[in-house]
Amino acid sequence: MIAHLAILAPGLLGASVARAACARGLAKRITVWARRAEVRAALHGQDWLHNVADTPEEAVAGADLVVLAAPVDKIIELDRQIGPHLSAGAIVTDVGSVKGPICAAAAGHARAANTCFIGSHPMAGSEKTGWEHGTASLFEGRVTFVTPNADTPPPALRTLETFWRALGSSVVSVAPEAHDEIVANISHLPQAVATSLACTLAARDGQWRHLAGNGLRDTTRIAASDAAMWIEIFQHNRTAVLQALARHEEELAAFRRALEQSDWVEIRARLERGKLWRDGFRA
Amino acid sequence: MIAHLAILAPGLLGASVARAACARGLAKRITVWARRAEVRAALHGQDWLHNVADTPEEAVAGADLVVLAAPVDKIIELDRQIGPHLSAGAIVTDVGSVKGPICAAAAGHARAANTCFIGSHPMAGSEKTGWEHGTASLFEGRVTFVTPNADTPPPALRTLETFWRALGSSVVSVAPEAHDEIVANISHLPQAVATSLACTLAARDGQWRHLAGNGLRDTTRIAASDAAMWIEIFQHNRTAVLQALARHEEELAAFRRALEQSDWVEIRARLERGKLWRDGFRA
Repeated sequence: MIAHLAILAPGLLGASVARAACARGLAKRITVWARRAEVRAALHGQDWLHNVADTPEEAVAGADLVVLAAPVDKIIELDRQIGPHLSAGAIVTDVGSVKGPICAAAAGHARAANTCFIGSHPMAGSEKTGWEHGTASLFEGRVTFVTPNADTPPPALRTLETFWRALGSSVVSVAPEAHDEIVANISHLPQAVATSLACTLAARDGQWRHLAGNGLRDTTRIAASDAAMWIEIFQHNRTAVLQALARHEEELAAFRRALEQSDWVEIRARLERGKLWRDGFRA
Repeated sequence: MIAHLAILAPGLLGASVARAACARGLAKRITVWARRAEVRAALHGQDWLHNVADTPEEAVAGADLVVLAAPVDKIIELDRQIGPHLSAGAIVTDVGSVKGPICAAAAGHARAANTCFIGSHPMAGSEKTGWEHGTASLFEGRVTFVTPNADTPPPALRTLETFWRALGSSVVSVAPEAHDEIVANISHLPQAVATSLACTLAARDGQWRHLAGNGLRDTTRIAASDAAMWIEIFQHNRTAVLQALARHEEELAAFRRALEQSDWVEIRARLERGKLWRDGFRA
């Protein structure tokens, strides 16, 4: 149970954290701050929060858990801004898709005594963005990464892990750099692949998509994701994504070469390896 | 209304044609033949057909529409086998994923007078295979390609188009070669991409998939498809798939080069081009 939860710059994820915490009775008090005055005005009417703050500093006053729900660049700026204004015992976390640069920057920020930053990344989302699309069930059955470093106080880590579990997700704790390599492969590479497949088809006859079955629909679904969000992710996880992309290009070239050579033993091996891996997904 | 519908070698698609035709009252009589005696025995108990034939020749006797639902190789063999045994006025079609080689072979087969072969390809399916998984609703809202050639009698083409529409699908009529180029892009390329993405991830830590969100799940869903079916498709549509793969490799390499060069204008243009294309899918 959190006495006072503060959520800064809620988008889809931040609003979902607030809604889920409210629906599950996890926080006695929920304060939200948004950058734009018109969003703050709209938030005033919502029944899943108790208070709308006018500034980040006001929002974090007295909070024991602060969630920075802004885009990656802004998370670093916000953490620097609120650091000296935190109340003793406060834990600051975020929901950004990349953890290395954020956790490294946070480690260098001035911060009130007995407070800390621990990165979080809930593997939940939608092609939809914006706080209006937040739902209380967004984290149910999903994985949330929590990324402590060597200096993270174990009790703070346990509190943060307990919070994400209480929102319905399972929690995996890994170092920020390990997180970034994993998501480069399981999230950022699929985005680059789906976008590139969509671009391949867009360059031919754009109406062909209307003839497709569900295969193309599913394979390219995430190509519809928000471009601005993804540019930030690729900027901040560039090196790990490049490594994953290089490996994928090798796999695709090997498939193409086998097809060129009519090497059906190799094509079968690749189809079966992919199937075995995909069949291993939890239902 | 078909007086006598014969379905040879039903798998998922053939059984779905029979079930849909039965459910919608489109055929007075439905006869099915399966290669294996144990399948024929199991089919005897099904309530969506009227008769189980012991041979292909027996199955097509008196039929006015014959659907060859076998894998691509076997379609050609079956069409050759039944050609001389068809009743006058019979239309033969198939449900194979590649049309050029099948339609070319069929054009050379001996055939009873006043009968013809016209290729079909319903863009419907499932990772599941086998006649047991057939459903009466499989074609609803889907596209079915019908691939006449220059010699196809217009009334036969109209009858076949009407049949597929009556099963619930919309119909697109194109030449066999145009069909093969389109499906190389909208179906066979996505399969090669999903398989190669699955292989990329399988080569790293196979347990990472359990940490992924829905993006990876959707992007790789069709990697779980039946390997034997896909080898046949790649064999029969090799040239068109190679062309589509080469174009996709260029798109992926261009994305990777832009990322290497931190060319965010180019990355944004690619993300937005993919999103625009994907947003254009019908809901």
